[in-house]
Amino acid sequence: MKSILKKLITNGILSPHEISSIQIKETKINKGTILQRAGEPGGRAFYVKEGLVRAYTIDEKGKEHIFMFASEGWMVSDFEWRENAPALLFVDCIEDSLLEIIEQNDIIKLNRLFETKQVPNQINQLMNRIRVLQKRIILLMSADTLTRYEDFIETYPDIVQRVPQRMIASYLGVTPEALSKIKSKMLKKH
Amino acid sequence: MKSILKKLITNGILSPHEISSIQIKETKINKGTILQRAGEPGGRAFYVKEGLVRAYTIDEKGKEHIFMFASEGWMVSDFEWRENAPALLFVDCIEDSLLEIIEQNDIIKLNRLFETKQVPNQINQLMNRIRVLQKRIILLMSADTLTRYEDFIETYPDIVQRVPQRMIASYLGVTPEALSKIKSKMLKKH
Repeated sequence: MKSILKKLITNGILSPHEISSIQIKETKINKGTILQRAGEPGGRAFYVKEGLVRAYTIDEKGKEHIFMFASEGWMVSDFEWRENAPALLFVDCIEDSLLEIIEQNDIIKLNRLFETKQVPNQINQLMNRIRVLQKRIILLMSADTLTRYEDFIETYPDIVQRVPQRMIASYLGVTPEALSKIKSKMLKKH
Repeated sequence: MKSILKKLITNGILSPHEISSIQIKETKINKGTILQRAGEPGGRAFYVKEGLVRAYTIDEKGKEHIFMFASEGWMVSDFEWRENAPALLFVDCIEDSLLEIIEQNDIIKLNRLFETKQVPNQINQLMNRIRVLQKRIILLMSADTLTRYEDFIETYPDIVQRVPQRMIASYLGVTPEALSKIKSKMLKKH
């Protein structure tokens, strides 16, 4: 299976010269190894060449919620690539695996390369949409209403004032009364 | 605000000649108008130039669950663009809006153009990932476990046999016992 960097070259997204400063090595990882813990800084990306990986969250009660599985050819990342942003997901290996692990500094380098070009910049925009959708799923699975409301405000800063409260409640999956309680809780918090 | 087709040209994704057969007109839509109903064939895409649109599902009990809001510059679509595939989402206008409505035949034409080129083909792959994530959210919000299990099998046909049942249950957000019941239900159904 082709490496992720070779794919970027073959697909005409970046030139061999442009990615010459980026080194991504294959790594063999044993079944059961935890690759990333939610809350730790430095989100990375995991490209599966062989084996099987899962990404999951653990809620306040200690319950696991599996966000996704990734087998050959899939990539796992929470797309939280701003410097020092905490990882959203735990990632571990369900089978012995051969992975390409893309460290945060290399992801940042790749994104900067993308931003300089029109078409790859379009790809950046789509990846941002994927980030937003992934976060919605992760929060739907395991976060409390307050956290989901804060994420709503972050995702839709310009819309909050234009939408009736009952629709925001419907977006969050709670009653308008529960939303009203959450909002007073938030006012006290800040 | 630029039209969606002009954006594709400015971003260097397609040439003016290539998209000459595609006509997308601006349409004024009144507040409250329903643009699409879940279950009807012919999924479309809605690009918001002015106004505010929401996309939602209605569950078996008649309860609305809002999937997303879209204001200026956002696009709404359930990405169910195979011919005759039923739409997953209801879409309506929360404010008087100016929209570009991209009909299914034009979406299919655009996708064919994308497939002929390497970089846009990468964009197609990202859009497919967006489709899968969106469907996961929509089903998490409002579908029963059986529907979510069927979607799991469709998304991960090669993984179902490699993953322990308790992990599939954790992906679906149910107990292993509930999953076991769902599986016997499914066997009876087919």
